[in-house]
Amino acid sequence: MITLKKASELIQAELKDLPLANDVPPTLYEPYYYMMEAGGKRIRPSLCVFAASVFSDDYKSAIKPATGLEIFHNFTLVHDDIMDKSDFRRNRATIHKKWNVNTAILTGDVMMIRAAEMFSDLPAETYQKVMPLFLETARKVCEGQQYDMDFETEERITIPAYLLMIRLKTAELIAGAIKIGSLIGNAPDNAAEALYRYGIYIGTGFQLRDDYLDVYANETELGKPVGSDILNKKKTWLYLYALENAAFNHKNYLTKLYSENSTPTTGDVENVREIYHNLNIPDIINEKIKQQHDFAVQQIETAGLPGEAVVELKSFAEKMTSRAM
Amino acid sequence: MITLKKASELIQAELKDLPLANDVPPTLYEPYYYMMEAGGKRIRPSLCVFAASVFSDDYKSAIKPATGLEIFHNFTLVHDDIMDKSDFRRNRATIHKKWNVNTAILTGDVMMIRAAEMFSDLPAETYQKVMPLFLETARKVCEGQQYDMDFETEERITIPAYLLMIRLKTAELIAGAIKIGSLIGNAPDNAAEALYRYGIYIGTGFQLRDDYLDVYANETELGKPVGSDILNKKKTWLYLYALENAAFNHKNYLTKLYSENSTPTTGDVENVREIYHNLNIPDIINEKIKQQHDFAVQQIETAGLPGEAVVELKSFAEKMTSRAM
Repeated sequence: MITLKKASELIQAELKDLPLANDVPPTLYEPYYYMMEAGGKRIRPSLCVFAASVFSDDYKSAIKPATGLEIFHNFTLVHDDIMDKSDFRRNRATIHKKWNVNTAILTGDVMMIRAAEMFSDLPAETYQKVMPLFLETARKVCEGQQYDMDFETEERITIPAYLLMIRLKTAELIAGAIKIGSLIGNAPDNAAEALYRYGIYIGTGFQLRDDYLDVYANETELGKPVGSDILNKKKTWLYLYALENAAFNHKNYLTKLYSENSTPTTGDVENVREIYHNLNIPDIINEKIKQQHDFAVQQIETAGLPGEAVVELKSFAEKMTSRAM
Repeated sequence: MITLKKASELIQAELKDLPLANDVPPTLYEPYYYMMEAGGKRIRPSLCVFAASVFSDDYKSAIKPATGLEIFHNFTLVHDDIMDKSDFRRNRATIHKKWNVNTAILTGDVMMIRAAEMFSDLPAETYQKVMPLFLETARKVCEGQQYDMDFETEERITIPAYLLMIRLKTAELIAGAIKIGSLIGNAPDNAAEALYRYGIYIGTGFQLRDDYLDVYANETELGKPVGSDILNKKKTWLYLYALENAAFNHKNYLTKLYSENSTPTTGDVENVREIYHNLNIPDIINEKIKQQHDFAVQQIETAGLPGEAVVELKSFAEKMTSRAM
């Protein structure tokens, strides 16, 4: 077994070798490599290679498919940035801004295809197990993104609907990455399933933590203004919980603040924080996040994994759900 | 072996059963089915199922993958229509027009994934042969689309560069469809390769015929105004050939007509037609198309196919390269 840190190093090295000499036209491939060079935590591919190494010494065969998962993740960012009209990502201009929307659409398309092509070297039996799982996961991410867009204009979003959205948009790819790695390592089915569920829980906890930090971290930790979600009228778990539980006048305030023609200010961020505080939302969401963490840990404790794998995965679950990552 | 007509009927029936009950959110899947219902000639999937039937009685296993090829083709149309700002296709509003650009981007993405998922039921050995070929073909189509976009702003495009573009954008998917069908039918490698080359030739001939008909067919045959390519400053084979061979004053006229701030009129269409006529371009391009047809026929005559398959493929090559389809 290798550590997650080692897995991450293997991925970084592999990503350096990504550009191929025969990638033409350059107008299509330059934006792709520009995107891939921008960095990122490489969480998904690292989990994939790590999971393979838990079950097999031949974990290196997971490196290329893992890279495919990272390319896929970046493809979703390219298209999401068009849809969200985001001009910057990781302190650099987004593709549709640096080039144009058409280039961003088509580069995204080719990245999706390249992502899938990264699985082609797997042995036939493994390939036929892993590829449909990758595609199913990819489709779920698109479905999650669509729910997310739908929620922008929908008035009543239930908390279960929100949790389904973040599961699809965020957790499924993390869970899929671990399961794909496990299957490449020939894990027993029940272990692969347990690791998949582990991924769903840490992915969900990670996103809820993200919702929390947006309001309660400081700007240095966040790398973006505190309260961005409120300023952008993003309906997070905190907002939806407040809307369900706040007093009548606060509900009205929140609804109006998020209505079509409203432009929230930093003063509004303070007001919303106050409403959240009065409803004890910081404690409640942190309890919710801890629950996801605990569910994740339960999964790996009963999956029959080697002790050192359990230690590594516990420490990662802790990291994903308890700090700004 | 079944006929191409029979193959087309099987595809039409299969496409009726495409919508799945659990396709949510509807905001993502309704535009997808709207697109697939719009019709079309279903050339690619029909060729795929037909090719499988040439080599195997179990051609039915090619039906779902063939449907995937049709979904992929429609995905490219959804994204191309955004890029080309086309408001109508097959007499209906395009997805980005009927819904919006974001929906068209994301619906396209999910269609690409669904297309690939249609291959999942193939036996492992076949799957691992066919899926990477599908992905490579898909990537080539994107590369072709990028060249096509690049050409809009490039001044000097050579005829070989143009032929590479139409090969990638149009012929590769037709050729890939036939090769994929052949491989599903367990065709010998040399036969699959010959059929692939047949596809490249008929695909190229088909596109050149399309370039020709745009100027020389009548509006009823075309279903769009005669000279659309000229009105839209589309650099077709005819235009590029004229630019290389016309007298100095005609070259200047053509270059100016296609320059950034020019808006060609129907009078210009007449002038261009006159220039083409003086250069004997109708005859030259028809000779070129006939050459593609003949190359295609040569391929199938030497591939060791059953006589009835050769007859069917010859008749199809004739259709693709000699009439408005």
